[in-house]
Amino acid sequence: MLTISLPDGSQRQFNQPVTLRDVALDIGEGLAKAAIAGEVDGKPRDLSYQLPGDGNVQLRILTKRDPEALEIMRHSAAHVMAQAVMRLHEGVQLAFGPVTDTGFYYDMQLPKALSEDDFAAIEAEMKKIIKENLAFERIEQLKADSVQLCEEMGQEFKVEHLQTGLGEEESVSFYRQGEFVDLCRGVHIPSTGHIGKAFKLLSIAGAYWKGDASRQQLQRLYATAFFDRQELKEHLHRLEEAKKRDHRVLGKQLDLFTIDSKAGSGLILWLPKGATIRQCLEDYLRDELRRRGYQAVYTPHIGRVELYETSGHFPYYRDSQFPPLCEHEAGQLVDAFVDRLRKNDLEKSDEEKLLQAARVLGYEGEYPAQGSHEEKAAALDAWAHEHERYLLKPMNCPHHIMIYKSKPRSYRDLPIRLAEFGSVYRYEQSGELNGMTRVRGFTQDDAHIFCTDDQVADEVRGCLEMTKGVLASLGMTNYRVRLGFRDPDSSKYVGDAELWDRAEAAIERVAKEMNLPGCEPEPGEAAFYGPKIDFVVTDCIGREWQLGTVQLDYNLPSEGRFGLEYIGPDNKPHRPVMIHRAPLGSMERFIGVLIEHFSGAFPLWLSPEQCRVLTVSEKSEEYGREVEQKLLAAGLRAAGDYRGAKLGAKIREAQLELIPYMLVVGEKDRDNGTVTVRDRQDGDLGAMPLDEAIAKLLDESARKLVRERPVEAS
Amino acid sequence: MLTISLPDGSQRQFNQPVTLRDVALDIGEGLAKAAIAGEVDGKPRDLSYQLPGDGNVQLRILTKRDPEALEIMRHSAAHVMAQAVMRLHEGVQLAFGPVTDTGFYYDMQLPKALSEDDFAAIEAEMKKIIKENLAFERIEQLKADSVQLCEEMGQEFKVEHLQTGLGEEESVSFYRQGEFVDLCRGVHIPSTGHIGKAFKLLSIAGAYWKGDASRQQLQRLYATAFFDRQELKEHLHRLEEAKKRDHRVLGKQLDLFTIDSKAGSGLILWLPKGATIRQCLEDYLRDELRRRGYQAVYTPHIGRVELYETSGHFPYYRDSQFPPLCEHEAGQLVDAFVDRLRKNDLEKSDEEKLLQAARVLGYEGEYPAQGSHEEKAAALDAWAHEHERYLLKPMNCPHHIMIYKSKPRSYRDLPIRLAEFGSVYRYEQSGELNGMTRVRGFTQDDAHIFCTDDQVADEVRGCLEMTKGVLASLGMTNYRVRLGFRDPDSSKYVGDAELWDRAEAAIERVAKEMNLPGCEPEPGEAAFYGPKIDFVVTDCIGREWQLGTVQLDYNLPSEGRFGLEYIGPDNKPHRPVMIHRAPLGSMERFIGVLIEHFSGAFPLWLSPEQCRVLTVSEKSEEYGREVEQKLLAAGLRAAGDYRGAKLGAKIREAQLELIPYMLVVGEKDRDNGTVTVRDRQDGDLGAMPLDEAIAKLLDESARKLVRERPVEAS
Repeated sequence: MLTISLPDGSQRQFNQPVTLRDVALDIGEGLAKAAIAGEVDGKPRDLSYQLPGDGNVQLRILTKRDPEALEIMRHSAAHVMAQAVMRLHEGVQLAFGPVTDTGFYYDMQLPKALSEDDFAAIEAEMKKIIKENLAFERIEQLKADSVQLCEEMGQEFKVEHLQTGLGEEESVSFYRQGEFVDLCRGVHIPSTGHIGKAFKLLSIAGAYWKGDASRQQLQRLYATAFFDRQELKEHLHRLEEAKKRDHRVLGKQLDLFTIDSKAGSGLILWLPKGATIRQCLEDYLRDELRRRGYQAVYTPHIGRVELYETSGHFPYYRDSQFPPLCEHEAGQLVDAFVDRLRKNDLEKSDEEKLLQAARVLGYEGEYPAQGSHEEKAAALDAWAHEHERYLLKPMNCPHHIMIYKSKPRSYRDLPIRLAEFGSVYRYEQSGELNGMTRVRGFTQDDAHIFCTDDQVADEVRGCLEMTKGVLASLGMTNYRVRLGFRDPDSSKYVGDAELWDRAEAAIERVAKEMNLPGCEPEPGEAAFYGPKIDFVVTDCIGREWQLGTVQLDYNLPSEGRFGLEYIGPDNKPHRPVMIHRAPLGSMERFIGVLIEHFSGAFPLWLSPEQCRVLTVSEKSEEYGREVEQKLLAAGLRAAGDYRGAKLGAKIREAQLELIPYMLVVGEKDRDNGTVTVRDRQDGDLGAMPLDEAIAKLLDESARKLVRERPVEAS
Repeated sequence: MLTISLPDGSQRQFNQPVTLRDVALDIGEGLAKAAIAGEVDGKPRDLSYQLPGDGNVQLRILTKRDPEALEIMRHSAAHVMAQAVMRLHEGVQLAFGPVTDTGFYYDMQLPKALSEDDFAAIEAEMKKIIKENLAFERIEQLKADSVQLCEEMGQEFKVEHLQTGLGEEESVSFYRQGEFVDLCRGVHIPSTGHIGKAFKLLSIAGAYWKGDASRQQLQRLYATAFFDRQELKEHLHRLEEAKKRDHRVLGKQLDLFTIDSKAGSGLILWLPKGATIRQCLEDYLRDELRRRGYQAVYTPHIGRVELYETSGHFPYYRDSQFPPLCEHEAGQLVDAFVDRLRKNDLEKSDEEKLLQAARVLGYEGEYPAQGSHEEKAAALDAWAHEHERYLLKPMNCPHHIMIYKSKPRSYRDLPIRLAEFGSVYRYEQSGELNGMTRVRGFTQDDAHIFCTDDQVADEVRGCLEMTKGVLASLGMTNYRVRLGFRDPDSSKYVGDAELWDRAEAAIERVAKEMNLPGCEPEPGEAAFYGPKIDFVVTDCIGREWQLGTVQLDYNLPSEGRFGLEYIGPDNKPHRPVMIHRAPLGSMERFIGVLIEHFSGAFPLWLSPEQCRVLTVSEKSEEYGREVEQKLLAAGLRAAGDYRGAKLGAKIREAQLELIPYMLVVGEKDRDNGTVTVRDRQDGDLGAMPLDEAIAKLLDESARKLVRERPVEAS
């Protein structure tokens, strides 16, 4: 007998074999009709899934209302899109068709280069397929038979994937709807009709088979689908909004930053206006740090490779780092040589040539010609270590650790909080680069706290309060907090289990005491070195960004790493805990997000040009300049437009530049000592005495007021 | 007939052949006796120098009063020191014995390891030699004979130098005093007696023959000499003072900075207290920059090699830079390979091995096996250019230029002043590194001004005013200004001669209008790209430091470099002038100098801890903490010492840490709301109301008061 437990706590028992659909029907016909798929013991399953004959299972029937259902439907929609393309075009070779956070795509190769002009036809064909309401049928096959099936269908990518891309499984699954069959793990909706009408093809892009640029180029069709038309409409509106708010476009329009491939891809050149925003933010953070007992330090932008060998960042993360700088040319060769050995990417004859070259450059060591690649690499590494090699620093922690270690520490000194706007460099692939949000060099608003176990809770609270406060002062109040905890069943985590339990409990308690939204522990989401807390911010058009982070670290202080110590009240050495934290993450990414969040219209306190004096005519230029001087003297970032142009044109220009306040001055203002204040958002505020206007602006700026600009209704 | 013109404008004529000594005698017996050497047509000469039989010469007789004479005497003293060592020890091999800015040394090899214990004997022997008043005799010899002479004397370094270290000269000169003969260009004093008694051996250090660490190690004997005993005494006192003020020692004592070879030699880790000083200085400079119309920017710490090829900094300055980072391992090999080719440092067989290695790494180009080294290097370079290569930036100018070029510029936009605290990296040899004053990474208080020719004078004035003001606010009022102009006879300078003339005239006029001390044009001291102005500051113990600099640049904006332009009022493109300027030079070096200048006792506004509350007993702890909070709230950097220790001990500790103000609080203070103020310099200032004390400190800090601490009398 099979006992099924449902989410509401109720149980049902079956004596005969049943599928998920049978169970749904048993519960009610309405549910059976609405059912999209199910979940058995936490795993998603098709409705046709055959439940075991006896035992106990936890079961959920998924309908449109469950977020998991949307993902399943989008996956099925990807199949339908591929089917539509194959109905319309000859010679389509399918690669993969996964879902994304906001939709799905399918990579395919076909003789015709698709364009947006083809979208209408594909969408129309998809509509037909949906109307046909074809059932999704799961077919399990032995792998050998599967290869034959894919060969018969002429699907070469699938053949290759079956032969080289899968694990040890003996059988694999296909899904069929109508004439379309695809190698696929599933899960899928019962039939194409469940997709409904709220779908849309969005764009087309190039891609490579398995992301390998040396393989075939594919066409990637992006699309999205929702259960609800209104949701699709809102999503498309958000996409439109996002396009208008693109920080790369606004960054150029508003002279905030530039990237020049001659200087280097992924490296931000902060133009004066962007630099002003960054400085305002940094000054604000610096004040906060001082208030909260942090101490500023400065460290260099390179460090010896040995430092990162101790920290474990080298050679482990070598591929995402810039290569080392070597004092001696020999080191440059050996680095390439060793890397090839470690990657097992070296023919015997090539190895000899490289070895000869190394000898030319002075290598006199004993080369273990019969040894393993690792032994050979180690022998060369030892030679490389005779020379100074530096890494462009990929993170600031090892340098802050060296400062901690620069003198003996006592428990009385703890917590020590070292802060730095530290620039770090990572080698993102050029295809990954994106304006300020994916870069190769960025400046973290970084700090490292060294504290005792007992201080962890208070320090975490301090970090969370600071992050919360900083985000609030930028009008970012819509966020959730993710608690990344360890998976208790995994062995990948370093540090004592008891310590972890205490730290996780402390973190969760603090986060809940503070009433932070979210706060559900996510087991398995911790870093290997400690639990962490991430702030995931939703911007004003509904996109999520992971920004601030607080991470505990039991690894770097440990014996095998930097062996940090402090002398306790018992006069014995103890190990401190490290906390890594960055409320914004990085200046580049955060300001990139801010540009999009504010659509370039920064609040007064962050605006590069806070106010502009506009003269009605040349007669008021002298007074205008006097006003500008008074604004500057009051500490406001002011400028003046004294050209002979029409006032309307000057206002339009200032509006386009998103200057928060325009102070219009005419002859009457001159006579009365007033200015006519114009707000970029609310328009004309009328005339007021200059002092009053200055006080108003200073007050708004000091209060860091963020005035909500509602996103235009869709 | 020979006509001699003297510095006073008078002339003398001689029909018979005369030496300089004869001329001195002709002028007067007193002068002949005081004469040390002479200068003929600007070149230094021995008194025994034979003047030509006819023609016109400019002539100076040098006596103790002429600064050049001191250098000549010290050079002779170096010979005497070597002679003394040879009289006292067997098997002395002499290397070189030059003068330095403040004395002289002689490098030598001898079986015995000398120590300071030997100094007295050497000095005594020198005294004897001086008393013997041996004449310095110049001997000209054919080079071939000279080698033989040195071989006979057993002086192997001199033999090697004659054979490989000299140019094409047919004959060389030796100097003999008594039994001592040395290969030497001269010039020397007439006889050893002129050295007098004011000399002293100072220290001993290791050195290498011709600075090459793979050659013999030598013993370097440092010494100094003056014409005047009082001057020697003052110099020795300054050395003592300098030792006490050594920024490396104070930096450690006062927790200002540290260097850890594990993180990297020559790379400063700024500890919280040092970082506070730096931040105070940076904040102050930032305010000054804002006030003076500069715009802050931020740029990355690496740039593509191409950028520096355009600027001309690569490969020209390759040896003083960190090697490039190469995106692709191939680039790392090729960089070493090309460098060897360019340095002509590659055997044929080695070349083949390296080429094979390059092929292994993917080089598929046509290698010009028969071509010149330059052609080969170029072929490989072309391959390297297929990959992205980056340089750790050795200067900020190319990045600021990219910002200038990021949009079209009009004459209305000029001057554009871009400022950045820009960290740059240069590869100083490890032997050259010295605390904060010679480092491998440093942060310049950099800015680049882009202006029209007509704006040069005003912009230079602005730069000089800022530098003058900044130095004054640090109590550095003892400096001179060096005007580095071009040598009109040299062709090494880029840019139009007329532009140079105008720029030099403008610079000189501005510097003189400002009554800056010094200001003598020094032809030949310009950079090749433009004239420059350096501030040479004398610290409180009389040492000179070159700090601030202002440099015009006609090179980087030019067609062959970055081709900068702006649109003039005539609607046509024009070329801007660039000005490089840094009032402090670099934060590292400047603060290193400041530590020594202030002997660690920073003025209040720069002190990391401005005041410390000291409790008389535990009874006043609560009040003490209240006082500390009020100090912090007032924006002062305050701390408290509430330990049970004796007040005297707490005061001593605070004095040692050079805390400017100690606020002592006892029960009486608590009852009266007062504090007893103690000044680190003037001691007890008595009790005063807390508010009054706070106001006093805030005022002193805001005024950036520098209170002179006289150097202790010698």
